[in-house]
Parts: sequence; C-alpha cells; structure tokens
Amino acid sequence: MLIIMHVNSTAEQIEQVKQKIIDLNLTPHVIPGRTRCAIGITGNKGALSADYFKHLPGVVQCITVTKPYKLVSREVHPEDTVIELGDVQIGGPEITVIAGPCSVENELQIFDIARQLAKMGVKFLRGGAFKPRTSPYSFQGLGEKGLKLLARVREETGMKIVSEVLDTEYLELVTEYVDVVQVGARNMYNYSLLKRVGKINKPVLLKRGLSATLEEFLMSAEYILSHGNFQVILCERGIRTFSTHSRNTLDINVIPMVKQLSHLPIIIDPSHASGERNSVPPLARAAIAVGADGIMVEVHPDPENALSDGHQSLYPFQFKQLLEQVQKIAGIIN
Amino acid sequence: MLIIMHVNSTAEQIEQVKQKIIDLNLTPHVIPGRTRCAIGITGNKGALSADYFKHLPGVVQCITVTKPYKLVSREVHPEDTVIELGDVQIGGPEITVIAGPCSVENELQIFDIARQLAKMGVKFLRGGAFKPRTSPYSFQGLGEKGLKLLARVREETGMKIVSEVLDTEYLELVTEYVDVVQVGARNMYNYSLLKRVGKINKPVLLKRGLSATLEEFLMSAEYILSHGNFQVILCERGIRTFSTHSRNTLDINVIPMVKQLSHLPIIIDPSHASGERNSVPPLARAAIAVGADGIMVEVHPDPENALSDGHQSLYPFQFKQLLEQVQKIAGIIN
Amino acid sequence: MLIIMHVNSTAEQIEQVKQKIIDLNLTPHVIPGRTRCAIGITGNKGALSADYFKHLPGVVQCITVTKPYKLVSREVHPEDTVIELGDVQIGGPEITVIAGPCSVENELQIFDIARQLAKMGVKFLRGGAFKPRTSPYSFQGLGEKGLKLLARVREETGMKIVSEVLDTEYLELVTEYVDVVQVGARNMYNYSLLKRVGKINKPVLLKRGLSATLEEFLMSAEYILSHGNFQVILCERGIRTFSTHSRNTLDINVIPMVKQLSHLPIIIDPSHASGERNSVPPLARAAIAVGADGIMVEVHPDPENALSDGHQSLYPFQFKQLLEQVQKIAGIIN
Amino acid sequence: MLIIMHVNSTAEQIEQVKQKIIDLNLTPHVIPGRTRCAIGITGNKGALSADYFKHLPGVVQCITVTKPYKLVSREVHPEDTVIELGDVQIGGPEITVIAGPCSVENELQIFDIARQLAKMGVKFLRGGAFKPRTSPYSFQGLGEKGLKLLARVREETGMKIVSEVLDTEYLELVTEYVDVVQVGARNMYNYSLLKRVGKINKPVLLKRGLSATLEEFLMSAEYILSHGNFQVILCERGIRTFSTHSRNTLDINVIPMVKQLSHLPIIIDPSHASGERNSVPPLARAAIAVGADGIMVEVHPDPENALSDGHQSLYPFQFKQLLEQVQKIAGIIN
Repeated sequence: MLIIMHVNSTAEQIEQVKQKIIDLNLTPHVIPGRTRCAIGITGNKGALSADYFKHLPGVVQCITVTKPYKLVSREVHPEDTVIELGDVQIGGPEITVIAGPCSVENELQIFDIARQLAKMGVKFLRGGAFKPRTSPYSFQGLGEKGLKLLARVREETGMKIVSEVLDTEYLELVTEYVDVVQVGARNMYNYSLLKRVGKINKPVLLKRGLSATLEEFLMSAEYILSHGNFQVILCERGIRTFSTHSRNTLDINVIPMVKQLSHLPIIIDPSHASGERNSVPPLARAAIAVGADGIMVEVHPDPENALSDGHQSLYPFQFKQLLEQVQKIAGIIN
Repeated sequence: MLIIMHVNSTAEQIEQVKQKIIDLNLTPHVIPGRTRCAIGITGNKGALSADYFKHLPGVVQCITVTKPYKLVSREVHPEDTVIELGDVQIGGPEITVIAGPCSVENELQIFDIARQLAKMGVKFLRGGAFKPRTSPYSFQGLGEKGLKLLARVREETGMKIVSEVLDTEYLELVTEYVDVVQVGARNMYNYSLLKRVGKINKPVLLKRGLSATLEEFLMSAEYILSHGNFQVILCERGIRTFSTHSRNTLDINVIPMVKQLSHLPIIIDPSHASGERNSVPPLARAAIAVGADGIMVEVHPDPENALSDGHQSLYPFQFKQLLEQVQKIAGIIN
Repeated sequence: MLIIMHVNSTAEQIEQVKQKIIDLNLTPHVIPGRTRCAIGITGNKGALSADYFKHLPGVVQCITVTKPYKLVSREVHPEDTVIELGDVQIGGPEITVIAGPCSVENELQIFDIARQLAKMGVKFLRGGAFKPRTSPYSFQGLGEKGLKLLARVREETGMKIVSEVLDTEYLELVTEYVDVVQVGARNMYNYSLLKRVGKINKPVLLKRGLSATLEEFLMSAEYILSHGNFQVILCERGIRTFSTHSRNTLDINVIPMVKQLSHLPIIIDPSHASGERNSVPPLARAAIAVGADGIMVEVHPDPENALSDGHQSLYPFQFKQLLEQVQKIAGIIN
Repeated sequence: MLIIMHVNSTAEQIEQVKQKIIDLNLTPHVIPGRTRCAIGITGNKGALSADYFKHLPGVVQCITVTKPYKLVSREVHPEDTVIELGDVQIGGPEITVIAGPCSVENELQIFDIARQLAKMGVKFLRGGAFKPRTSPYSFQGLGEKGLKLLARVREETGMKIVSEVLDTEYLELVTEYVDVVQVGARNMYNYSLLKRVGKINKPVLLKRGLSATLEEFLMSAEYILSHGNFQVILCERGIRTFSTHSRNTLDINVIPMVKQLSHLPIIIDPSHASGERNSVPPLARAAIAVGADGIMVEVHPDPENALSDGHQSLYPFQFKQLLEQVQKIAGIIN
C-alpha cells in the first residue's frame, strides 16, 4: 500500500498516518517528494484495505500494490494447472473443444448431435438442462430429465458432459450427472454458489461475468479454490460494451493477461460473444490464435428449429470445417 | 415483429417467410419498399422470438416491436404502485429515505446509529447481515446474529428494516426478520432467487445489476411479479462504464424512463454509485431532483472504524443536513 | 512514481532500476516489503513517464502518483475561476443558463426564440452555425450566414452568443462573431484546434468527449490554458455506455470531482445527454442539484419542425417552468 | 421506417401520422396489430429521419430500417475494394503488414528499423511525424523534418510510407510526402478533416474512434467516399470499455461484420489495442485468424529508449517471429 498525501499536508497529518500504520503492526516508510509526500507500508501478508487510511486528514489517495488474490496467482503457483478427466486433459498441450446445443431439447436431438460430434473426435459435450433466461416466459430447460439424457449419451459415446448449475438447490443433482459443472456468467458474482462448488470434487467451468473486471473474475475463482476445489477452468464469453454490432464484445486480450497472472486454464466461448452464426468461426479461430486453451461452441443438428440460441448455433458441417482450421492454427502456435 | 428482407431477396424467399408466419398462426403483412421489402407480423400476444426467422434465406434483420415485459408495464397498469408498510408508504407523495450502515457490526453500533436516524425522522433502517464481498477473505457479515440485532432495533425505534438476502438458502430466515427484502446488484440475474422472492409476502427492493440494461432490469422485476409478488421497489445504484473517477456511473436518466415505462416505484442509492463520502450528498440531491421516489444512503456512527464501506458512509451530522436539502428539493418538484 | 518489482526480482535488477532513476537526476527510495520490493522516486517536477521503467527486467508495475495536469489543478490555483463577460459571470454565485435552438435555421426562428428567452431573463443564447453531423447527407448548418444572424440577435436583445467552431479554418470567423466559442465533444481530442483556441481572447466552452476520462478532459483544458487562454468553461454532456435507454449516460458525479480537482467552472448539457424532450427537465434539475455552475438547454420555438434535434428541444413554455424550478433548487444548495 | 403507435392511440392520431407521411411524398402502410398498430413507410430513397414523427401524439417509437450509408455499403458495391499502390495491394489475397515505430525520432532510428523491416519483406513503413498526445507537455513529433526522413527511407528501401495527419492545416504537406494518409482514432469524428481527405488522390487509413459504433465508423468512411476518394482502408484499434487490464478492448468481431456490410478493406492495430508488448503478438495472430486484411504493428529498434509507446513496441526479432506465424495463419484461412 502506498499512501499519497496532499501537497499541503501538515507534519501532524503525516504523523497521524504513520501512527495508524504502526497500530496495525505494520511499518511506515515516509518518502518526501518535491511537491508532496508519500508513505509506503510494508509488513502486511495479503492485500491491505484502503479503508484504514482513506478518511485520515491529508490523505489524497491509497494505492494498493499487493494483488488481492493468492491461490489463483501464478506468482504462488508458477506451473500451469492441468485438469485430468480420465484420459483427457484441459490446460495441457492439446486444445480442448467443448461442443453441443444450447439446451438439451429431447432424446432425438441430443443423441443426434452427440453422435456427429463424437465421430469428429470431440471429447466434451455441452448441453443445458437448467437455463437462465432473461424472460420468465421463455423455455427454462428440461431439468433433471435433461441431465438423465446427457448421462445416457455419455454411456453410449464416452463423451464428457459439461452442463450449467443455476443455484445451490440443484447443485448436488447436477454434480452427480455431469463431468464438468458450469457456473454461468450471470452467477459469477453469486458467492454462495461459488463457495458450494468450492466443495465438490469435480472440475468447475467458471464464466466471466458480463461486466466483470479481470481482477473480479480471478477473485471469483479464488472463492472456489479457497474452499478446496483447485480444478477451475476460466471461460471468456464476451463483455458488455457500447458496441452493438455483436451481442457482446469478446475481450480476447484477457487470454495473454490470464496466462501471465494465473496458472488456471482459460477457454473462449465464441457463440455467446457473437450471438450470430456467421461470426462464430472467425472468433473461434481468433480464440486459438490468441492462445486460449480451448473453445466452447454451440452446435445444433437443426439450428432453425432450436428452442434457444438457434441463430448462433453452427450447423454440424460448419463446425467440422472449423475444427480442422483451429487444429491447424493450434499447431502453428505451439 | 418486423422482418427486413435483403435488397436482392427473391419472391420465393419472401414466400417462405410468409409461410413460416402462417405456420405459427400469425398474420404476415408484406410492405414492398423502393429498395427492399419488409414483412410485418401481427396476431402474437406477447413478444415473438426472432429465432423463428433470423435463419431464413433473404432475411437481414428482425425487429422486435412488442416489449417483452407485461406485468411491470405502465401500459398494462397505468397508475403508480404504492407500497404500504403500516403507516408508511413507498411510491406515494412522500419521498422514502432508507439509511444506515453498510453492515451490522455489533449492538453498540447499530443501536447508536438507529437512534440518531430515528430522531431525525428516518423511517427505514438499512444494515447488511449477509454481505456479498468480492474477496473470500473479507468480512462476510454477522449473519443471523445481525438479523436479531436489527429486529431488536425495530422493537425499540419502530423503524422498518431493509436487509439483503444472498441466496435461496437463507431467504426464509431473512424474510422472517426484515420488513423489506433486498436483492443486491450481483443477484439481479439470479433467476432462482427472483422466483423465490416472488413467492414471499413482503416487499422486495431490487437493485439494478452493474451492467443491466433497463429492459433486463424490468424483466428481473417481471420474474418477481409473475411469481405472485407485486410489491417491488426498483433501485438504481450506478452502472459500470469506462469512467473511473467514481466507483460506478449513476445513470439518473433511468428514473424518467422507468416512470414512463413502468408503474413500480424507483429509488436511488448514491453511496454505492459514488464510492466516496463527499460525492454522496450531491448525488442524493440529484436523485430527488430527477424524480426518484427516494434514496438509500449509508450512514455510520463512526465511519473511520467501519468494517466495510467506511469511506463512502456519511457522518450523522452530514446526513442530517442532506435530509433537509432533499426535503426542500422534493417540495419544489411536486 | 512508484515501481513495483516482481516477488522474485534479483538484487541486480533492483540495482538496475535504481541506476536508471539516478541517470534521470532523480532519487530512488527502495522500500523492502515482506513479499516484494517497491522503489519510490522523488525529485521530478511534473508527471514522470512510465516508459522509462516498464521494460526493465523485474519490473511488474509503474504507478504514477503526480497528476499530469498543472494549470487546471485546484492544488495550483485554489480559488474558483470566475469568467466575466461584461456584467455577467460564469462560475460565480449565480447559475449560468444557456439556451436556444440546436441550429440557427433562419431569421424568423432565431429572433423568435431569442426574444422569448430574453424576456425570461436568459443571458446566453446558443445556436449552431457550423454543425458536426454523423451523416454527410444531413443539414450542416448555415455557416457565416448563421453567425451574422446571431450577431444581429445580440444587437437587439443584448444576449451573449455561444456557438460551436468545428475546425481551425473557421476559428477566426467564429471568434469574431460570438462571445463564447464552443468546442464540441467530437473535437475534445482535436489538439490542433485546442492549441488555437488557447490563443484567442474569448472564453471557450469545452465539452467532454463521448468516451473521455476525467483526466483526459482536464488535459484537454490544460492544452488551452497552457497556450495562454485561462477562460475555459467545462461542459459534461453524457458519455457512451452500454445503456441504451437514453442517447448517452449523463455522468453527474463528474461535477463534485471537478470541483475538487480543478478551479474551472463546469456546466451540464442535459439535452444531448438524454436525446429526448421529456427527460431534459429532470436531468436539468439534477444538474443544478449536483452542484453544476449552470446548464445549456436546447429550446426551439417550433420543435416539430426543427431541422435538427427537434425531439430533444423543449417548447418555450416547458423551458420557462424548468427555469423556475432550477432557480429554486440553486437557492437551496447555496 | 416503421412507426410504432401507443396501445391506446386513437384513430385520429393514426390519421395524423399517415397525413405527415403523405405530406413528405411517401406512402404509409398501416399494420393493425392485436395490441397496437404500426405504420410502415415506403418510397424514401435514403434513410428517413425519425425527427419527422417522434413528436407526433400517440407515437411510441420510430424504427429505422434503411441504413444511413450508401457508398461504403456492400449492397451497393458487392465486390471487395482492392487498393493498388504500384505493385502492392491492400484488400487483395495477400495480407498487408504495416510496421515501424510510433514516432520518427531521428535519422539513425528510422533508417535502422526500416532496413530491418525491408529485409523481412515488409512493404509498408509506419512512423508518426505529427503526434496527437494527451498532454501538451509530451513530445509532439518532428513535423516536416520527420516527413522528409520518411521520404528518404522510401527512396532507399522502396517501402510505402504510412503517416498520420492531425489537421487540415498540414494535410497538403503530409499528403505530398506519404503514400497512405492516416486519420487517427481521435479524428474519426473530425468531419472537416474527413471532407478534405475525401478530395486527395491517395489512400486514406481511417482508424475507428475510441467509442465509435460500427455505424458511425462506416459513416465517417462515407464522408470520405462521398467527397470523391474511394480508397479507404478501415482500421480497428480497440475501443474503450470498463475493462482495464489492457489499454483498450480489441473488438475483433467488427471484422466479420464489416466484411458483411461493406466492401472496404479492414486491418487491425494490435499495438494500440493492447498497450503492452507481450500482448501484441497474440492479438496480431488473432487479427489474421478472424479475417482482417492486415495488421499495423509498432516495432522499434530500441524500445527501451523510444520517445513514445516504447512499452508496446516489439523488438525486431519478436516481430520477425510474429511475421512467420501470421503468414502461416493466413494460409490456413484462405
């Protein structure tokens, strides 16, 4: 923590700040400047709250130096986290591809798409059973019935299942059926849910909130790790900006930054970022080119008749072409 | 719904769109233009999903005309909703003032501030017992112990209690103790929680999410009303923008817009919008001047030693001056 | 400047940073922390560029402490700047009201509205002669003809004229005719123009850019002051955010911040912030309530037939009511 | 244009809107709906202003259907625009690479970097002679001296020169020396300058403004085309959002959208988008993967001692590696 004093601060005010620091069992370091004085603080283990100093007379600004996250930080854990699910890895040398429909709609649909994807070599199937919808009048998902269908698909195809949990009430149920529990963008700040998924023994796919800063995103992951679950996969899915030509603005620069600050794997969801089918393949290629550990893409056997997100779902043939392109791009980068 | 066709769309493509509309038991209206053709749709009761048409060949854009909300809409319910709590009203001719500390910290603190506020004529006491914190290492609130203190304060002072609920797990507990259940900004998209507060029989104070559009905000209220609870108070508390001189950007223009679109009362929280004590009184005055039904302000008996949000909490004497100013401004507007 | 070193930085790296600071004739202050070391710098007169240090091995972050602006700063010039135009002041105890149409359209229109406004006691008339328009196909203003009409209005009514300059080419012309030269939001980053208006001897009304931070806004004013013109009036007119219910988001919190950081007067333009007539009076009231030195409002004698911005222009009778309200609010605050 | 009427609008109000449309020599199409009525308008050649209707009683919303741009539109000009500069193309099958320092600093620096880049096969050299700087106290560029150095570099290396023009005053000078005239992000709304570059006979590189919507960006290009210059290259360089981990947020989704809406070539500037050296190569790879026609990258022979933007400039060896990667990615996409 660095405390900046007003140009006209008095010796007495500086003394008061120093005393406050000493009272907290920390050490003050007064740095006299030409126009104003600053006071450095050392001795704190984690981040120090500015609240202790902001109100003191003569204080202009409190600058936090230590990062508030610990367990997710690469400084603490320098090697990449690689998550193992049987013979498949997330965060390792191979890129991870998660594909499937927005929602599980019925047996025919989910088996149809899963078989096509498995044949292409896709190892992870996504499919929502519980859906967060802006409108109370929209389709809210099949619930447990959807989870059961996903489990049957796994039995047949061997694919790993990724599906979203909306609340603590159904967490146990969802965890039982799936291989990776997804926490959606709307729940990134739902700390009650984060604490709970911090206690399950399955990997958690944590999506960035619509307006979450990188620090808040990492702090939400910190909630999960600090409650005992170290298997967290981050997912960038676009942020909300003034720019309206796409549903969200995919913030790809978060990838190199996360790689620098954290050891956790991070993937990109181009489907929710764009909101439009034709933009999904370009964004997916960019995701791999920028260094993401993988992509999560909506693919539907019959997008025109999808119950949700049909306009942003790829046709299977489009997805197949995309798969070839991203594999080639991944080969260039490594 | 209005469907815009490509300038070079064919008669066959137009026919296909028409047929799709007819299949949905709706009526197409072809509007031939000089450069392109548009197709209007009538006959739908609520909002129609663009998903039905977006993918059809020749379609360029689908424009939604009907608003997706119903119960919160002023078109459906022209008179203002006024919420009655005993002899106090929210949304009526008097402005509502909710004040108190960020968190309930201990008996001494909460009784001290409540007595001071009651003496000033404040009818609503705020105080968090369950706190949503960005860091898992920060003070998370006193929990039930805090609620019990609030209940004792009510007994003594007669003030109505406003406190936040973080999850469905503690909803019953919180509802039992408080007079108005607050759903915070981070939970505005937590539809599981919204459905549940839609079934309680106490008023709900719903804060706007950090990056929620006005339509999403109203849709979250619609979740509550559509589950049976019509006692909803909206609260603007600042949105997230590029502008970093304050913690959030208070979007005061939402007040006249809500007044036009909805019958629900709406108040402003200047404390979280600004994040700094000195900006709170100016923003609170602006809140009343722009036509809000009230304000919710953080006041602490000893801000320098507050466990949370001390730097944005007013001193009691500051709040008293503010109270006089906003009452005068309210008098000018009505 | 404070330089934060990596947790694993070596003694040699720290030495290298110290040497660089000494080479710049400044003084390094090493602050050893528990987990990492920081190096404070003193001796610099103005802001120091992070560019000198960012690239050195072991450096994690460079934190700027000194503000980059000087002349606009309240630290340098503690008393409020009050601009005098004959018997009228801007930034003094009276609030400033600037009103008039978006564009000067013809003799009838501008004389009609000016006479009505003068009768209400308004001292400043706004009216665009050169208009910045998003489309090359829109009405671009009457040019010099418009300026001449404004000058004739001044002769008759005694009102001061405020009108926009778009480029250096017409600066001399505009300056000759008007009393206050307006630099619009789209030109806030036009440093060539700012340098030039820094050399005229008339007050400049500088609007905040659509996505300008407060610091950039003040730096643009610094351009004008540093070229010799100290008569600058700042104007907040809304920023661009994700929020689409209004044309822009009025960032009222900038007012208390500017009052703290700078001595320059600042007014609010509620018309461009909202983009809709019905929201203008509430925003204008909020502007005065939050402590702005004045407002600039679009008023048109016949909004329905205005050549530009008709839907956000007030009717004269509406404006008259508003004027009474804001005067009363101003009375409460002072 | 589609006009949405209030649910309770009267027959008389509908009649009034119809009459207004007829008065404008256009054709109204009344579409009676179940809850409300809408009125379509046909017969207009370009975009119709909502201003004609917004104020009429009973009107709730005016929805613009026709796009406001014409000349830049792919609907009007279906084939890609390819710009020829001697034997080099922009917008053709080969990707365009523009590289060089932020500013021309001196003879040694610019010749050094240019020779290295030319040896790598780079055809376009960037280098600022006139620099837009936030602070009036920062280095503002060498001016004409810088342009002369660039011209001498061209003579020796054969590279095409790209350099920025800041104002109409120096446009003739800059145009004389360079091959591609750059209009920077801060000048995207400077319509006086856009009109002027619309009359030169050299290609213009137009950067997107920090908070410009895609439509505004295309409209600024329309200004240039409508004044006679069809050689426009668009450039995405990041937008301003709440996200602070990078200097700007690169909005890569604008590439597929521009490719759909317009025939103009578009490149990406990853250096200004990121603001940090280590993020530039990942973003540059993403730029090509998403389908941009090229990249513009800051490279400096000695970044640590650069006069501006050193921390975001690549070392020549880094750039060489990047060049190989982007060429391979380009090969995969086509």
